[in-house]
Amino acid sequence: MVAVGRPVLGLDIGGTKLAVGVVSADGTVSGFLAEPTRREEGHEVIVRRLFDLGRRSIETARAEGALGAREDVAAVGVSCGGPLDARAGVLTGPLHLPGWDYVPIVQLGTDEFGLPVALENDATAAAYGEYRFGAGRGTSTMVYLTLSTGVGGGAVINGQLHRGAAGNGGEYGQISVRPGGRPGFGNRAGTLEAYASGTAIAERATEAVAALGGTGRSSVLSALSKIRAEDVSAAARDGDELAREVWDETVDLLASAVTDLVDILEPDLVVLGGGVTRAGDLLLVPLRAAVLSAAMPPAAAAVRIELAQLGDLVGVVGAGAIAFDKLAEPSPPSTLTSAPAR
Amino acid sequence: MVAVGRPVLGLDIGGTKLAVGVVSADGTVSGFLAEPTRREEGHEVIVRRLFDLGRRSIETARAEGALGAREDVAAVGVSCGGPLDARAGVLTGPLHLPGWDYVPIVQLGTDEFGLPVALENDATAAAYGEYRFGAGRGTSTMVYLTLSTGVGGGAVINGQLHRGAAGNGGEYGQISVRPGGRPGFGNRAGTLEAYASGTAIAERATEAVAALGGTGRSSVLSALSKIRAEDVSAAARDGDELAREVWDETVDLLASAVTDLVDILEPDLVVLGGGVTRAGDLLLVPLRAAVLSAAMPPAAAAVRIELAQLGDLVGVVGAGAIAFDKLAEPSPPSTLTSAPAR
Repeated sequence: MVAVGRPVLGLDIGGTKLAVGVVSADGTVSGFLAEPTRREEGHEVIVRRLFDLGRRSIETARAEGALGAREDVAAVGVSCGGPLDARAGVLTGPLHLPGWDYVPIVQLGTDEFGLPVALENDATAAAYGEYRFGAGRGTSTMVYLTLSTGVGGGAVINGQLHRGAAGNGGEYGQISVRPGGRPGFGNRAGTLEAYASGTAIAERATEAVAALGGTGRSSVLSALSKIRAEDVSAAARDGDELAREVWDETVDLLASAVTDLVDILEPDLVVLGGGVTRAGDLLLVPLRAAVLSAAMPPAAAAVRIELAQLGDLVGVVGAGAIAFDKLAEPSPPSTLTSAPAR
Repeated sequence: MVAVGRPVLGLDIGGTKLAVGVVSADGTVSGFLAEPTRREEGHEVIVRRLFDLGRRSIETARAEGALGAREDVAAVGVSCGGPLDARAGVLTGPLHLPGWDYVPIVQLGTDEFGLPVALENDATAAAYGEYRFGAGRGTSTMVYLTLSTGVGGGAVINGQLHRGAAGNGGEYGQISVRPGGRPGFGNRAGTLEAYASGTAIAERATEAVAALGGTGRSSVLSALSKIRAEDVSAAARDGDELAREVWDETVDLLASAVTDLVDILEPDLVVLGGGVTRAGDLLLVPLRAAVLSAAMPPAAAAVRIELAQLGDLVGVVGAGAIAFDKLAEPSPPSTLTSAPAR
């Protein structure tokens, strides 16, 4: 029997950054460390550095008093972008890590640490982190949507992390918001991700600026050599008309997808995370108004829409939450009483 | 402790028909009886007739040998259209039953039968019926969509019936398929229900026929005084060009909503029921092709799309499945060992 009260180690494998930390039973992070992924080094070197970083994190957490002098973490959670096979514990070619076509990270971690190791899709782990330790505490059915380079998400349904038949939990970036619209990742055009990822917001603004020529209109964005999503939200906030149009369309299309999620799942809470949500109320206020007026009244009355709370720690906390979940799984039945030793 | 192996009584309150039956632990129905609802009689008279019909069903099932001579059913399940409050056990103004603004059907049923009584939204109950006893047997995450007068549905997620924060489980008819399109029930335009319900298919065909004048085109549907959805599918099957256009658009828009559901929930199985699905392969074959090519490959690889199996019995079987679920709930903890009698 493993005590679930002991801290766990969270390892987050990003395309640009490895982040690790010791996550306590209340979700606080000690010994947080991060370093560049340096993808060119290949998975053998990078996984070795990840594990070393994890060991240093445990020592740091011990120095910080989060672990007793002779106490070890109880389990390890690993969060990574997909595709991956969480049940088998294998990375099967994450899009952000070329060449990682078969990395049995759970076995490698078990060999390294001698502890239970769990693997989860990063957006799914982040959803679970927000549920256990962030904006979702105390809810029952929570949908998490992250608007970042891409759009992803995950859900906790009736208190259980939703993994789905394919093990990815859900691909909310693929929700149709404008049939026949912009192409995106995947087979569908006009998806949420094709409009509301940070990448897509920047592209749409760049195209809108390019289309200004000869119309007599102008935009502060024209002066930028490269437009980023945060430039669009900042200019929209300052009243720039073109930026406002791009932003309003973004909110409208995001509201369409969130309304679909609210009508389909009837969550208590929708949590929005990722870099695009740094726009804060500029995103949240009109989004709430649009979703609550479009969704079915009982579902609208039951749901709150809030920003994520874990910020840059979400990867590590999510990985930790997955490790706690692994510890809470029923142990395989002991064979001691049912079969004699041979 | 209640033996869950005993049969239960299923009561289905429809807008045009009351249907009842005794549902065995394997889902077979005995003593199936139905009679017109006759809404004009009001809820007091109708609920009385419903309970009497239930009692006759039990006697009939006993005569059929499905219940022993001295055996009673173990519980009662009631299925009805919403809005209703399943947890409180109260009908709160079902759209198809004007005037039923507060009918505490669970309390009335408990008083009548002296047994555990459960209430559920009809589409949710139908989903659970298909999961336990129909097309969904052996699956883990199953989405059920019914295309009938309206469009509704429900889901079983990781083996649990999904009820959601508002208790309706989900309103799949509200999924956006053509933003800014046809108005429908609810606050959104361009929903699945506004295109793919039987009512909407008939309306769209009627409008298409009206728009034929002067175009030189013709359709066999022009000869009908009133076009029904089944006329559209029959004419499409026979090669009528206008009917084919209406039908193909229906399948396209249904595929958009089903793709959203597949990408969001990653189910093992999508089950399609309701009158519109009597079109069979004319619906199923192109729908499968469209969904499997549009959904994310892992989700597409994990899902099957099948027709419902319970047909006209789905209301009664669904109500019975809900009653079985009620019996399987953990009993309130006994206080005998924790507190002495006073």
